[in-house]
Amino acid sequence: MTTISILGLGAMGTALANALLDAGHAVTVWNRTPGKDEALVSRGARRAQTPAEAIAASELVVICLVDYAGVETMLASAEKELSGRVVANLTTGTPKQARALAAWVEAQGAAYVDGGIMAVPPMIGTPASFIFYSGNQPAFERHKAALEAFGDAVYVGPDAGAAPLNDIALLGILDGILSGYLHAAALIRASGGTAEGFTPLARRWAESMISLFPDLAKQIDSGDYRAEGGSNLAMQAAAMDQMVEAARDEGVDPVLIEPMRALIHQRVADGFGTDDSAGVIELLFLNGRGKR
Amino acid sequence: MTTISILGLGAMGTALANALLDAGHAVTVWNRTPGKDEALVSRGARRAQTPAEAIAASELVVICLVDYAGVETMLASAEKELSGRVVANLTTGTPKQARALAAWVEAQGAAYVDGGIMAVPPMIGTPASFIFYSGNQPAFERHKAALEAFGDAVYVGPDAGAAPLNDIALLGILDGILSGYLHAAALIRASGGTAEGFTPLARRWAESMISLFPDLAKQIDSGDYRAEGGSNLAMQAAAMDQMVEAARDEGVDPVLIEPMRALIHQRVADGFGTDDSAGVIELLFLNGRGKR
Repeated sequence: MTTISILGLGAMGTALANALLDAGHAVTVWNRTPGKDEALVSRGARRAQTPAEAIAASELVVICLVDYAGVETMLASAEKELSGRVVANLTTGTPKQARALAAWVEAQGAAYVDGGIMAVPPMIGTPASFIFYSGNQPAFERHKAALEAFGDAVYVGPDAGAAPLNDIALLGILDGILSGYLHAAALIRASGGTAEGFTPLARRWAESMISLFPDLAKQIDSGDYRAEGGSNLAMQAAAMDQMVEAARDEGVDPVLIEPMRALIHQRVADGFGTDDSAGVIELLFLNGRGKR
Repeated sequence: MTTISILGLGAMGTALANALLDAGHAVTVWNRTPGKDEALVSRGARRAQTPAEAIAASELVVICLVDYAGVETMLASAEKELSGRVVANLTTGTPKQARALAAWVEAQGAAYVDGGIMAVPPMIGTPASFIFYSGNQPAFERHKAALEAFGDAVYVGPDAGAAPLNDIALLGILDGILSGYLHAAALIRASGGTAEGFTPLARRWAESMISLFPDLAKQIDSGDYRAEGGSNLAMQAAAMDQMVEAARDEGVDPVLIEPMRALIHQRVADGFGTDDSAGVIELLFLNGRGKR
């Protein structure tokens, strides 16, 4: 049993607190506006009146607010209590925000761990949930068992920004999959079909595309994008032109596939027409950072 | 054993002809430029000197050229031989092109079947390969067993445009998955990680996103996009703003996730902020077609 404080009792903070209670931990809770803690208190959580009181109650302090501005204000009000604590901040933010906050928290004599939650509140504590952690590794390791009450705890590095970075990277994958599916479903519906009828094959196809990730990764890490068999970028540029034309013919806005078409054409124009599609990634590095 | 003619011996046409020979069919081949048929002839294929000769040789005529313009020119040169044949056109094109060609071919007294090949040439004849077919259903059924030498034969409807439509719909899904993965990998590399290290979780995540397709389909077919738990569009709009900001912070061009962000904001502005993301599809129908 660990004593743990949860600051912030929105839908996610409440789910986190319940998962800790389910796992048998002693939990102290605080929320800016009162009333959200009643069910938790009836389950045995201790109510703190101020952030300072909540922070003073536990070594492990879990924060889950709406944004970083709220976290900064709250922590400033409890500056004196921070020393010696582990702050695990699961508030959604950018890597840059996480790095700045980590520096400030560590300057107060506390250890900082950032978390990126890959789950919606009802998933917390189920096998479907996992959370990226980054920052102070000894502090993370010390509390890993407790944090696993929320779901798999995946440590991604000492840079505090690594957890939100992995979080937004995965959200970008979700965005791409959603874009592809909605574009496809719009074509099918525009021509009289049903999304449901189309979905089993769409799923089978998408699964086989995902199994290509390791090959793409190898090309990206090595910078060797030469196509082996299959279709090269020049062929894909032609196919994408046809896809855009076909979408318009069917009354579907090709807006979601346009940027990839433009990047593929750019890459062909840059002289890489016989390469594989993974090479398009080189066009995404704004300042040449990330290149080998 | 069926006698089948293959017109067009590029990489794909050659793979198709080889698959038919492997399955023990009698095969007649033709190609515009000579010399590409030698290996096939040495395996027992019969060489036709003209399209007309190739078409006259078989009831089932499989066409696989570079584009529809080539198909039209070739068929015009063999107009008299078409009556009574089944033309299975596997040339890549748009649904509109397929519908126009189907009307012309059927006017010559032939049956038209269109095919959308979901495979690269080395995959033809393997379990990984499948082909969408649409158009004349009795003609398709009559030759389905022979066509399955190429891979699974999936019939998607009497509209000749349905096969290319399903083809480009699946290619759109590939485009989305590739966009999402390249964006994510760029973030990871820009901040010093490796694509390979990131890939196992990316794959696990992507697989769980794909398992949401049936739920999305249900919402799309019913037009009922109300969010159940989870995150709604207003929350996603905020998250996407943060994703774009974070990408720029890390030196990554957010171009691949920008269109979805814009559509989500548009949908929120239209008053659907508490809906689920699937409702974004309504913005893709250019003329209100495809709506219920």
